[in-house]
Amino acid sequence: MNFHTRKWVKPEDLNPNRTLFGGSLLRWIDEEAAIYAIIQLENQRCVTKYMSEINFVSSAKEGDIIELGMEASKFGTTSLTLSCVVRNKLTRKTILAVDKIVFVSLDENGAPQPHGKTEVTYVKDRLQS
Amino acid sequence: MNFHTRKWVKPEDLNPNRTLFGGSLLRWIDEEAAIYAIIQLENQRCVTKYMSEINFVSSAKEGDIIELGMEASKFGTTSLTLSCVVRNKLTRKTILAVDKIVFVSLDENGAPQPHGKTEVTYVKDRLQS
Amino acid sequence: MNFHTRKWVKPEDLNPNRTLFGGSLLRWIDEEAAIYAIIQLENQRCVTKYMSEINFVSSAKEGDIIELGMEASKFGTTSLTLSCVVRNKLTRKTILAVDKIVFVSLDENGAPQPHGKTEVTYVKDRLQS
Amino acid sequence: MNFHTRKWVKPEDLNPNRTLFGGSLLRWIDEEAAIYAIIQLENQRCVTKYMSEINFVSSAKEGDIIELGMEASKFGTTSLTLSCVVRNKLTRKTILAVDKIVFVSLDENGAPQPHGKTEVTYVKDRLQS
Amino acid sequence: MNFHTRKWVKPEDLNPNRTLFGGSLLRWIDEEAAIYAIIQLENQRCVTKYMSEINFVSSAKEGDIIELGMEASKFGTTSLTLSCVVRNKLTRKTILAVDKIVFVSLDENGAPQPHGKTEVTYVKDRLQS
Amino acid sequence: MNFHTRKWVKPEDLNPNRTLFGGSLLRWIDEEAAIYAIIQLENQRCVTKYMSEINFVSSAKEGDIIELGMEASKFGTTSLTLSCVVRNKLTRKTILAVDKIVFVSLDENGAPQPHGKTEVTYVKDRLQS
Repeated sequence: MNFHTRKWVKPEDLNPNRTLFGGSLLRWIDEEAAIYAIIQLENQRCVTKYMSEINFVSSAKEGDIIELGMEASKFGTTSLTLSCVVRNKLTRKTILAVDKIVFVSLDENGAPQPHGKTEVTYVKDRLQS
Repeated sequence: MNFHTRKWVKPEDLNPNRTLFGGSLLRWIDEEAAIYAIIQLENQRCVTKYMSEINFVSSAKEGDIIELGMEASKFGTTSLTLSCVVRNKLTRKTILAVDKIVFVSLDENGAPQPHGKTEVTYVKDRLQS
Repeated sequence: MNFHTRKWVKPEDLNPNRTLFGGSLLRWIDEEAAIYAIIQLENQRCVTKYMSEINFVSSAKEGDIIELGMEASKFGTTSLTLSCVVRNKLTRKTILAVDKIVFVSLDENGAPQPHGKTEVTYVKDRLQS
Repeated sequence: MNFHTRKWVKPEDLNPNRTLFGGSLLRWIDEEAAIYAIIQLENQRCVTKYMSEINFVSSAKEGDIIELGMEASKFGTTSLTLSCVVRNKLTRKTILAVDKIVFVSLDENGAPQPHGKTEVTYVKDRLQS
Repeated sequence: MNFHTRKWVKPEDLNPNRTLFGGSLLRWIDEEAAIYAIIQLENQRCVTKYMSEINFVSSAKEGDIIELGMEASKFGTTSLTLSCVVRNKLTRKTILAVDKIVFVSLDENGAPQPHGKTEVTYVKDRLQS
Repeated sequence: MNFHTRKWVKPEDLNPNRTLFGGSLLRWIDEEAAIYAIIQLENQRCVTKYMSEINFVSSAKEGDIIELGMEASKFGTTSLTLSCVVRNKLTRKTILAVDKIVFVSLDENGAPQPHGKTEVTYVKDRLQS
């Protein structure tokens, strides 16, 4: 699993108990997953369709740096399934894990569209080919 | 199920496809669920522990009004389980449903704390008693 | 008066004195009032035209849960007048009250448009009829 | 009346009708008024106590530049009354006016505190004296 | 140099060390400079092209009031160069200075467009002429 | 240079010309640079001290995915100098480059503190040693 995006837990991300607000974390995950799906499917019209159960394993506090890891686990005809782990960058302690996040590729009218992808490719390789 | 909080889908809540950004929606749900848990458990130190799978049934667009419904489904010793439905206020069409959102009541040191509640009570009744 | 939307006072809503920032509160009121007007007038093109004087009766602090109540007080030809109360959800203490908030219903060109409504109706009843 | 703070109406400030969201405007006014009160009363513990009626005279659209004008109209023992005008920077057209915004100066315990001011002073003059 | 826009450092503007987050400050500067350029060039299509080196001289803390000063230093054919100082409103202590911020005026297709201006003019004078 | 954090350009990140708002971009860079500095210096009290000149080479539009690259270029006694490139994730086109961003490591009282680092280390290796 590749960990890319990192977040710095700032005052605006806290709940009134002064730990990382779960809603902020979910917002970050959905954005990072969408980014991953768009890059892989080469289609900006990707929408979240499903998330499997979410365990909030540990929390984070102000000033912590966390990183979000995504991995493609299945390429369907119109869908892409990802798994996600969020962890503390410095301690590597898991904060949250989601087994399956399913995105669907849409055409211009919002209907599911086959994406023609069957495996992970890298932008670098695409640009070189 | 009672539907309380309503949201007006504004430009800041959209994804680049100009539909409601899933991450904004998850943020709203987590806040509304926390509010429900805090009111029921009469404890501000409530943290999200678990969410069951989430189906994004339909989307919402700019200007739509959506409402969030919550219902307590189980009172554990230190936990409270909620179910959640989000729907379009005017058409009543379901946007998203989450079967189980589990909150845990904490003491001042962040350890689980029995909350002593076994059923839904209303603030109105508590104030009158 | 019905109290619907609830807010959890988070760090991002505070002024530097660590009480609820008045500007955040006014923002919430304007949104909730717009939602109420849109639902009643069944027209998304509703704009705030007037607010009567506002008394900031008491404040709120981080972690407080507040609720916003709205009530239609007068249906004009193109306008709707609301009254608003904001209070602490748990103590029922009033935080702020606004006697009159006037919305005007507009047509596609931004000109006032008669809305044809004379009393409060509920979405539930509209959908059933 | 001096016009200081200017705002650029960006996508995040719009309502779904794509005009300036009233709630954003009220938030800006409350912040600018607080700044004015803090500077005049030389006390960071200033809270909004009252706003007189608000007329939303005209609107603003994306890309417009607006400016906020404030003027002290009365120095009470513990309070300061301001008047406020918001207008389009380029056309000078009034967007909104509020006759009275009352701030109260507080001591460390949150009780009203006499501020000892009776007229507008400028920071420049204070620093020179 | 004229100081116009003022900001109140609120919890949402802080970094986890509880001083003003540099990123928030840069965001404010870019907006204020854009406002200045748009007013002078009378063209809403102005984009930031260049900033000279930035020295973060001193910091600001929660509750501080800061003010942003801008001055036109050079009118090019399609560009406008500004200098910028940010300082604490009450102590006049410099927080940050940027020698050159260059904006370019664009036409409807995004190509550089001569703006025809050679000196600072005031909106008041333009409206009177 | 390693590119980690990715951003999805959403409506809230746009200027009124509907391209990426320069201020949002600068905010992202400052956060990512702070994260890089904190990880390398193993000290959360890192503050931005200096940025060299910034060229805004190309813009980004709604829906674009951009990535931020950082690289340590010099370890001083109490400082760390980074270089930064922001580019479009899919086309690899450079959006902006900053040659030097200098962070200073502080002690608990806010005074510069020697950090004892002389080269880039990876969290993975630190945890294993």
